[in-house]
Amino acid sequence: MALSMYDASIPVFVRVLRNLDQILAKGEAHARDKGAQADALLQSRLIFDMLPLVRQVQIATDMATRGASRLAGVDPRSVEDNETSFEQLHARIASAIEHLRGFTPAQFEGSQTRAISFKSRAGELKFEGQGYLFHYVLPNLYFHVTTAYNLLRQAGVPIGKADFLGEA
Amino acid sequence: MALSMYDASIPVFVRVLRNLDQILAKGEAHARDKGAQADALLQSRLIFDMLPLVRQVQIATDMATRGASRLAGVDPRSVEDNETSFEQLHARIASAIEHLRGFTPAQFEGSQTRAISFKSRAGELKFEGQGYLFHYVLPNLYFHVTTAYNLLRQAGVPIGKADFLGEA
Repeated sequence: MALSMYDASIPVFVRVLRNLDQILAKGEAHARDKGAQADALLQSRLIFDMLPLVRQVQIATDMATRGASRLAGVDPRSVEDNETSFEQLHARIASAIEHLRGFTPAQFEGSQTRAISFKSRAGELKFEGQGYLFHYVLPNLYFHVTTAYNLLRQAGVPIGKADFLGEA
Repeated sequence: MALSMYDASIPVFVRVLRNLDQILAKGEAHARDKGAQADALLQSRLIFDMLPLVRQVQIATDMATRGASRLAGVDPRSVEDNETSFEQLHARIASAIEHLRGFTPAQFEGSQTRAISFKSRAGELKFEGQGYLFHYVLPNLYFHVTTAYNLLRQAGVPIGKADFLGEA
């Protein structure tokens, strides 16, 4: 049994987004306990010129869904970045997970060497599928989820590494 | 050509640690520019009850070297956590990268289903190799490197996502 590109992608993405959803729920509960406007927490940043929590979550979901689409050779779907509440972010994550679960292992066959190119803020990027997954999608996905975790952790939300890693 | 456990591990770990090394170098240069005791930056934390920068780097290197060893079925090496300077951390990362480069693809054959168990602060953990790599080693490695990045970024070090992702 060989490792498949599907196994290295879809179940990993789903798990990471599910953990993110649970971390966000703890952040929301913490903010409500403080009597704060919970949704204000979504605008928190580690420093003024980094993206706020709401963007970390939006980018994490896009990274997973676009990553899956490009590896499968289909056009990535586009969603609006218009969430302003925890409730809307939970819905965005749920939609991303449902979308990811629609991919099949057969769509990922041959994706290891698939030519992938797209425009990013850094310009035109070109990869083979394996490099795209391991050196772009996974690092970016973990970057944004970890940064979301760090924002909540710094705000005093009672979460720990076990919440980040999640359960099998 | 199938995806191999070696390809999903060693080149990824090496790249992540190399990027971490370069981010740290920028942090050190920034601290020296400020006239600060550069090594004091290693004690910075996002919040008092999270680990300081020096521990983020130590854990990242251990995650990679122990991950590689356990997947290869050999006893993980143990190194002391006694670094107090950027110079010592650079040496630790260089040693970890050299150690990782000593593993061969043949050692990773069959690692996908290898039974892996070890004691962590969370108690006894048990995995099959594939789950260990994708749901423990990679998330933890990216967690600690991203947190190191966030600590430096919050301290005003001029780094960006391109430094985190690194070059091929």
